[in-house]
Amino acid sequence: MRIIVDAMGGDNAPEAPVKGALQAVKEYGVEVTLVGRGEDILEVLRREGLDEVPAGVSITHAGQVVEMCDNPATAFKEKKDSSLTVGLNLLKSGEGDAFVSAGSTGALLAAATLLVKRIRGIRRAAMAPVVPTGGGGAVLVDCGATAEGTPEFLLQFAFMGSYYAEHVLGRPEPKVGLLNIGAEPSKGTSLQQEAYKLLQKAGEEGRVNFVGNVEAREAVEGAVDVIVADGYSGNIFLKTMEGAGLFLGREIKKMFLRNVRSKLAALLVKDGIRDFKKLMDAGEVGGTALVGIAKPVIKAHGSSNDYAMKNAIRQAVEFARSGIIEDISDNVEHMRLPVKPASAGTENGGA
Amino acid sequence: MRIIVDAMGGDNAPEAPVKGALQAVKEYGVEVTLVGRGEDILEVLRREGLDEVPAGVSITHAGQVVEMCDNPATAFKEKKDSSLTVGLNLLKSGEGDAFVSAGSTGALLAAATLLVKRIRGIRRAAMAPVVPTGGGGAVLVDCGATAEGTPEFLLQFAFMGSYYAEHVLGRPEPKVGLLNIGAEPSKGTSLQQEAYKLLQKAGEEGRVNFVGNVEAREAVEGAVDVIVADGYSGNIFLKTMEGAGLFLGREIKKMFLRNVRSKLAALLVKDGIRDFKKLMDAGEVGGTALVGIAKPVIKAHGSSNDYAMKNAIRQAVEFARSGIIEDISDNVEHMRLPVKPASAGTENGGA
Repeated sequence: MRIIVDAMGGDNAPEAPVKGALQAVKEYGVEVTLVGRGEDILEVLRREGLDEVPAGVSITHAGQVVEMCDNPATAFKEKKDSSLTVGLNLLKSGEGDAFVSAGSTGALLAAATLLVKRIRGIRRAAMAPVVPTGGGGAVLVDCGATAEGTPEFLLQFAFMGSYYAEHVLGRPEPKVGLLNIGAEPSKGTSLQQEAYKLLQKAGEEGRVNFVGNVEAREAVEGAVDVIVADGYSGNIFLKTMEGAGLFLGREIKKMFLRNVRSKLAALLVKDGIRDFKKLMDAGEVGGTALVGIAKPVIKAHGSSNDYAMKNAIRQAVEFARSGIIEDISDNVEHMRLPVKPASAGTENGGA
Repeated sequence: MRIIVDAMGGDNAPEAPVKGALQAVKEYGVEVTLVGRGEDILEVLRREGLDEVPAGVSITHAGQVVEMCDNPATAFKEKKDSSLTVGLNLLKSGEGDAFVSAGSTGALLAAATLLVKRIRGIRRAAMAPVVPTGGGGAVLVDCGATAEGTPEFLLQFAFMGSYYAEHVLGRPEPKVGLLNIGAEPSKGTSLQQEAYKLLQKAGEEGRVNFVGNVEAREAVEGAVDVIVADGYSGNIFLKTMEGAGLFLGREIKKMFLRNVRSKLAALLVKDGIRDFKKLMDAGEVGGTALVGIAKPVIKAHGSSNDYAMKNAIRQAVEFARSGIIEDISDNVEHMRLPVKPASAGTENGGA
């Protein structure tokens, strides 16, 4: 297994991707191709005390870097020698099994969609992070790849999320819930109401384990394994969780810093605090899978350090080994709406 | 000041509303009219050791109760002698200054809209809870009164939320943010994109302090005083926060229950834990204001205990005293889109 890593993507590049890759090679016995400015990568290796490129690591030079100011939709075309474009072309041509980048989400999504392409029959790729919940985590799909959804997109997200939860989280017959503001099928906007009908039908036919609408509170508490949402709502859900974790984390810190007694208390529950921080730390998961793309692509958090990058590479290995893409390809006929003349697959959902 | 209280609404009725009302009369010097089954209300008073109806409290008998199984849209018409209908009619006819209920949200909203009516020119009433944030709380408007929004609804929510933040939270020139998935005006669905334009224009004209899009994470961290959202998204935001609070609260409890050392730690930060719980407790705020209705209406949480009901009554007093409804009425012309023939105010937003 060989993972292609964008050495120039993210706030801490090239240090974090290069060091994360070195750790992953050691820890998981995987091979890594680092893509980016050769001299910058070698410089990081030298600072790590390595005068030669170590076994399991190879470097592919790419002289350009996609910056945050570049137009995400066109960056990969305008910068053909960027680590993003070169890396994804390696993936496309089979010179690696998965691609990991901590660079711009929009640019990665556009480039993956247009270079590597979607799985045939999939209308939209989706971002599918694993979010911490009371049930040991759930797959949220989509969290922002496409702001505006259609019922058919949501149906496909449900299938793709199911395969991900089954293969990567090890949940047999994962429970799929539609993120909504109440339990009844009539709840939500017309998008949720129409998606509910499609999901219910798929559930009745035994093709997906649809358990109905799930309210945000119950989703956080762990009611389902897969949370289906349009990109806008999924992003609100994800970012609210992140914000609440940061906000409450700070309040807890304040609680422990109040006085001598509270500082002593902090010492007594040191391990507990460490585990609590770990629970809320995006770096533990590593990154977010782009589901629906024809080959495995992982978006690591922009602020990833080497530990987070190592975990994102581990996640890429799991994704590539899982057989999810094969599952989606084999079953895509079940995920499509019957094609209606002149209206299929439009932004109005054809429902 | 006289507050009308639905004595039959909520999971803990009639105990919680009656006891909360007694406490509010004592603590805030306010008068309360309890509406509901006379014998049930008197029974609670007797259990509280009161053989007579105490000073400041009056009872208006209403023989019916709106139940969760009633159709929310029509319950107030079908049960004309319900505490909901009788209470709102008292409010309408001026026999009280505000109405508080812990009963069904949908039924309360429909009844308030159709009996008490909206402020002239306001397209939709909205639920405007104060949510805990790193900035000491923010007004979220809407959190679920209307699932599907239009740009004009969101413009009006921004104004109404501003008045609420200014008068009730004491924030001069409150910062208004549009809940979105990125900072740029092009982010989000067409609803957010169109609402952004209206809000930007209102901001440029100095009519509202619009600071742009606000991501969910920054909203929780306290970036703005007013979070503007359609009812669906606002509900996802609110319920995700509630869920995260419950989930993390449980994890913290686990941390303190681990062993003897951690239990000792819990004793040392007892006050801190109490304050932390208070921060996340919906009962501290009491209830959610229905803004846009011609008279003050407060929805208390369905699971309110007497303490939460007392706080909801306090909130009703603040709402009634604030002059928000007068402010909205006086300025409603600024909140309306120019009427276009045949398209104004439709569900498509006329934008």
